Amino acid sequence: MLLKNKIPLKFLFRKTRSEIIFVSFLSVIIGMADELFHVGGIAIPLAIPSILGTAISLILAFRTGQSYNRWWEARIVWGAIVNDSRTLTRQLLGFIDIGGEEAGQAATLVQKMVYRQMAWSYALGRSLRKQSPLKDAKQFLSEEELVQVAKQDNVPNALLQLQTADLKKAFRKGWVNPYQQVQLDETLKRLCDSMGKSERIKNTVFPATYSLIVHLFLYLFILLLPFALVDDLGFIQIPLVITVAIAFFLIEKTAIYLQDPFENLPTDTPVTSIARTIEINLRQMLNETEVPETVKPEKNFYLM
Amino acid sequence: MLLKNKIPLKFLFRKTRSEIIFVSFLSVIIGMADELFHVGGIAIPLAIPSILGTAISLILAFRTGQSYNRWWEARIVWGAIVNDSRTLTRQLLGFIDIGGEEAGQAATLVQKMVYRQMAWSYALGRSLRKQSPLKDAKQFLSEEELVQVAKQDNVPNALLQLQTADLKKAFRKGWVNPYQQVQLDETLKRLCDSMGKSERIKNTVFPATYSLIVHLFLYLFILLLPFALVDDLGFIQIPLVITVAIAFFLIEKTAIYLQDPFENLPTDTPVTSIARTIEINLRQMLNETEVPETVKPEKNFYLM
Amino acid sequence: MLLKNKIPLKFLFRKTRSEIIFVSFLSVIIGMADELFHVGGIAIPLAIPSILGTAISLILAFRTGQSYNRWWEARIVWGAIVNDSRTLTRQLLGFIDIGGEEAGQAATLVQKMVYRQMAWSYALGRSLRKQSPLKDAKQFLSEEELVQVAKQDNVPNALLQLQTADLKKAFRKGWVNPYQQVQLDETLKRLCDSMGKSERIKNTVFPATYSLIVHLFLYLFILLLPFALVDDLGFIQIPLVITVAIAFFLIEKTAIYLQDPFENLPTDTPVTSIARTIEINLRQMLNETEVPETVKPEKNFYLM
Amino acid sequence: MLLKNKIPLKFLFRKTRSEIIFVSFLSVIIGMADELFHVGGIAIPLAIPSILGTAISLILAFRTGQSYNRWWEARIVWGAIVNDSRTLTRQLLGFIDIGGEEAGQAATLVQKMVYRQMAWSYALGRSLRKQSPLKDAKQFLSEEELVQVAKQDNVPNALLQLQTADLKKAFRKGWVNPYQQVQLDETLKRLCDSMGKSERIKNTVFPATYSLIVHLFLYLFILLLPFALVDDLGFIQIPLVITVAIAFFLIEKTAIYLQDPFENLPTDTPVTSIARTIEINLRQMLNETEVPETVKPEKNFYLM
Amino acid sequence: MLLKNKIPLKFLFRKTRSEIIFVSFLSVIIGMADELFHVGGIAIPLAIPSILGTAISLILAFRTGQSYNRWWEARIVWGAIVNDSRTLTRQLLGFIDIGGEEAGQAATLVQKMVYRQMAWSYALGRSLRKQSPLKDAKQFLSEEELVQVAKQDNVPNALLQLQTADLKKAFRKGWVNPYQQVQLDETLKRLCDSMGKSERIKNTVFPATYSLIVHLFLYLFILLLPFALVDDLGFIQIPLVITVAIAFFLIEKTAIYLQDPFENLPTDTPVTSIARTIEINLRQMLNETEVPETVKPEKNFYLM
Repeated sequence: MLLKNKIPLKFLFRKTRSEIIFVSFLSVIIGMADELFHVGGIAIPLAIPSILGTAISLILAFRTGQSYNRWWEARIVWGAIVNDSRTLTRQLLGFIDIGGEEAGQAATLVQKMVYRQMAWSYALGRSLRKQSPLKDAKQFLSEEELVQVAKQDNVPNALLQLQTADLKKAFRKGWVNPYQQVQLDETLKRLCDSMGKSERIKNTVFPATYSLIVHLFLYLFILLLPFALVDDLGFIQIPLVITVAIAFFLIEKTAIYLQDPFENLPTDTPVTSIARTIEINLRQMLNETEVPETVKPEKNFYLM
Repeated sequence: MLLKNKIPLKFLFRKTRSEIIFVSFLSVIIGMADELFHVGGIAIPLAIPSILGTAISLILAFRTGQSYNRWWEARIVWGAIVNDSRTLTRQLLGFIDIGGEEAGQAATLVQKMVYRQMAWSYALGRSLRKQSPLKDAKQFLSEEELVQVAKQDNVPNALLQLQTADLKKAFRKGWVNPYQQVQLDETLKRLCDSMGKSERIKNTVFPATYSLIVHLFLYLFILLLPFALVDDLGFIQIPLVITVAIAFFLIEKTAIYLQDPFENLPTDTPVTSIARTIEINLRQMLNETEVPETVKPEKNFYLM
Repeated sequence: MLLKNKIPLKFLFRKTRSEIIFVSFLSVIIGMADELFHVGGIAIPLAIPSILGTAISLILAFRTGQSYNRWWEARIVWGAIVNDSRTLTRQLLGFIDIGGEEAGQAATLVQKMVYRQMAWSYALGRSLRKQSPLKDAKQFLSEEELVQVAKQDNVPNALLQLQTADLKKAFRKGWVNPYQQVQLDETLKRLCDSMGKSERIKNTVFPATYSLIVHLFLYLFILLLPFALVDDLGFIQIPLVITVAIAFFLIEKTAIYLQDPFENLPTDTPVTSIARTIEINLRQMLNETEVPETVKPEKNFYLM
Repeated sequence: MLLKNKIPLKFLFRKTRSEIIFVSFLSVIIGMADELFHVGGIAIPLAIPSILGTAISLILAFRTGQSYNRWWEARIVWGAIVNDSRTLTRQLLGFIDIGGEEAGQAATLVQKMVYRQMAWSYALGRSLRKQSPLKDAKQFLSEEELVQVAKQDNVPNALLQLQTADLKKAFRKGWVNPYQQVQLDETLKRLCDSMGKSERIKNTVFPATYSLIVHLFLYLFILLLPFALVDDLGFIQIPLVITVAIAFFLIEKTAIYLQDPFENLPTDTPVTSIARTIEINLRQMLNETEVPETVKPEKNFYLM
Repeated sequence: MLLKNKIPLKFLFRKTRSEIIFVSFLSVIIGMADELFHVGGIAIPLAIPSILGTAISLILAFRTGQSYNRWWEARIVWGAIVNDSRTLTRQLLGFIDIGGEEAGQAATLVQKMVYRQMAWSYALGRSLRKQSPLKDAKQFLSEEELVQVAKQDNVPNALLQLQTADLKKAFRKGWVNPYQQVQLDETLKRLCDSMGKSERIKNTVFPATYSLIVHLFLYLFILLLPFALVDDLGFIQIPLVITVAIAFFLIEKTAIYLQDPFENLPTDTPVTSIARTIEINLRQMLNETEVPETVKPEKNFYLM
């Protein structure tokens, strides 16, 4: 099945409630004005809402497309985070090849860096949702790391800096050669880019005037509809207007929720679930056999 | 010919059957209500479905565009897998240049890595379709490799890790120099990215509310159609409504099937066929003369 | 809340004032000509503005899409500037690893380069807005640097050149190895690209004929509207025409403001706010504990 | 002049002939049924084809956009082939710098590799069109190379493998250093990518159901048109229906031909012409003075 | 001001003159046929041009979008040329660090390469416009360079080859290390790509059949308009048809001029102006104090 069972329609309906109540009220008033009190001259030609309907459909279609692109870009960024987490681990395991007495130290460093990568994924997800970033991440970090990370406002960025510091140590010890240092630095750079891209999507409000004008335009279209229909249809216009209004307002709400994918809402990018996948993959790459379960669709989240 | 002979129309019709039966039933009822029992006042102006028709056409067109982009991105990702498989093989053959007593060992390692790349392609394709990943791949792997791969949930990722481990061995032996190790690692990184991109497309449900609202909106349009036509046309509206409904529902179904290209359906990205092409290319690059046939369009698959 | 409290609607209304006054005037004249003086034959069929309405809606939708893409690209470029500023700092701290008597010199050089990166971010933002570039930046620069920068028209480019000169010095001293020099150069190259991309968006006027024809087309549509409505509606067309005109002109204005995101307007990319974020991150990466506040939405700026 | 003199309209008309004959026949029949035999009740409201007209216009516009994107991507890929062919040659000439007794051998190797690149361009173009790949390419290859290439199904891939083998030889001899080997390998990797991208466009059928439904939808629209017009216009509907049908079918045909740019048709990417440009550039970079002419627009090809 | 003062409307009107004259003539004829000679039966329902109007609006909107994308891509490519010219200069100045007796020679080589980069920018701009490429460029080149460049058809490509040759010389002398050589080669590779991309846009005719069908479709729509309006409006249809025709033909012309941005027309990418910016930046980076003025909008060019 492509459509999930628990559809977040209730969620959306709740969000359009006030619009729908207002429209119902309006169409009833107009129906009564026409039918009962014979207020003449309030009808307008259907061509007017028809023109506006074409315009608002187009604008809504474009706007939904732009919201969808933001949502999909957020998902692409988190897909890249999965890829680069695996690549970082594979590179650390594949580049560092130390025997002798430093073998244990080197293995510890690799494990520490891989665990820190898991911490980074959880911390970034929670930061984006403006939740305390270290709740899920602190189990992967030492006391000392937690102290250092606390000094910076941006926790995931501080974690990346610690990765670079460990890489510097590995280079100083000769565990990685200069090419490998640069190649690992390139992976950290990509993770830094993904972090910044997520923050950009989070922090950039969708153009407010644009949103508002679409909303006003949509209202204008819906408000004119009963005036255009009352003459031909009388009271039958009421359910018709309400149904059409619901359809258009739902499309608009969908666009509004898709455009902000890190708001702790049912429509979010599933950052916790992705961070868990990273944890499982990385633990297994470290030969650990006990791994946590994948995240079931988060409570009240629908993995839209 | 650009259109294939065996068109999967039957497949799509089967999928829209319930919608079409319901619409037929509805239009017949309304036709009879109007014609036979002279139920008045059920007609609505044609401008209403006209406005909705414009809106739903736009939304469907955008949605089809988004589904097509997912489908085309999946194809691009699998095109990149072909390219990087060839590049990996070319690099291994072009970088490792060992004479003397280690020549045989080095050649064995190259062959083993190239075979593992074939295994990876088959395994990734089957994993994406949620089939047992090693069915086609195990012929290319040794017992030892199969044991190691079994320890991880993500089989293709485990295979990539084995590639990196062999690369580490080649570097330790001096068969590749540091630049070549990093360059080969870059190729593995791209394969890891393609793997993650395929998983992203597979695991990201197309926004469920968006799909659902499009579906409801489409139903609303189709349901109002007989009310708008019955006055002018009487019974003739019945075939007209059914035909129009079929056209719109088929467009929607096409979008729904395109958006998920790894579902073991006729509309899939042809992953088995692509993996086979990789096998043929790689075997011939290894100077093998006996290669398998290319995959004929898979049984009941139409290479859409 | 997704929509900000202080909506820049007043700002946009002020910009469409002249159009709206003209349209109001026209529709009143036509209403009076029809109603009072019984000037016949001035009505045209509603189908004409309907056709034009579809055309102008489409063209406006595309144009808004193109403007939005420019605005979003500007935001992406400034997101990349954040990422590369952090990466540059992380690389400088992670690559340079000098003990002994040069340790102090090297640390000074790193600090100087990181401060210069903060200066660069502020200077680029102000240059793009055609403000004096060094106002916010000069606190991060020495007298000597200010003299050298003054010799070039393009201040941010001069700052990048100073970064490269310091990198040359670090390489000559042996503080960075050849790989690290090239990797840092790559980061500077990306900053240079982001600078050039911002300049391109700033300096490339949106095709003037295209803008103008959209404007004329929109006027034509609005001007025909009262002629098409006056027959059916009489004076009621006046508020209707004005409302529709406002809706369409506001959409057009939104597009016009989005397309130029570095004009010191409420709809700008928030370059000062982003430069401040960079300053805070970089200072904390240098272990500074006193950092400035984040920028509150700039006075009269709405972070659209 | 932006429009070429020899427009391939005749080509397209020939391709839509059967559709147009069928539509003409239908509209004549319906015209006669209405006019001569007074068959009543066959008229339908114009709003029906109007709704379908909007829908089909949108779907056709999107589909043309997708076809155009495939065509343009094919052109971008072949543009990249030009760029990388020049880059490969420039790198070979700029990297290999051998004096003494090996100077002649090295120069021969460079020339051989550059010639092989010309061969590759011609061979790829012909392969994509399913023509025998070596017809134009064999003049650039030695007997020995032809023998080796014959062993693989994919001739251009075999040529790339020979390039890598020669690069390996140059590295073994010390003519290129490790950095240069990797940099040249990167160029070969990009050529391999372009090859794979061309093959992807060639081998991926545009979604067959999508094409078919667009075609059926278009037919449905055209078939209903005479029924909607016959009442108002009588026989005059015949030329009108035919003209409208031609316009829509031509748009569809254009989309169909654009979507497959390697079919040996007038609408193809001009692969032979581009390969010739590569030959001229590369020969002149080798200081040859006798170069062939550029390809005149290929016989019956219109460089669309 | 966002709209420039000197709008190239006159330019566009001149280009649509013949279409407008023809349409005026037609609508007058039809108006007279209907009004004066009472030729009946020439009217058609307005729904027909309405359907065609929707279709042509959509197709024009998409086509304008595609033309705009070509124009914007051209601008992006030339933005990248600015960036890479600055990067090349910064790298040359930052990498080459020779003291002693070769210091002068090395500085001369750097200056020569930077001047050649300025020459390349001017030469590429003029080549694309099919003007003699060396007119602006020869002041930056020595006699010897001019002789060498004259041997190749593609002057900018010959200049890039000279850059590589000088880089080879610098490497042989030990002025750049192997990493720096490869990094500089990478910058030259990007310039080569930008050159090829410009040539692709220049040499790829926008699909001719597509253009033609859009033009025919537009004519069909305009031609049917007077027939649809003459009944309701009589002579008033004449100015209406002409105005609508002008609006649509201007949109089409805009698309046609945007799609070819290197044609020496007012709508061009401002290649001379950009090359001048490069000259100023690069001279100042070389510490020159006398730099030319920026280019004022080129004579009769409007920097669209």
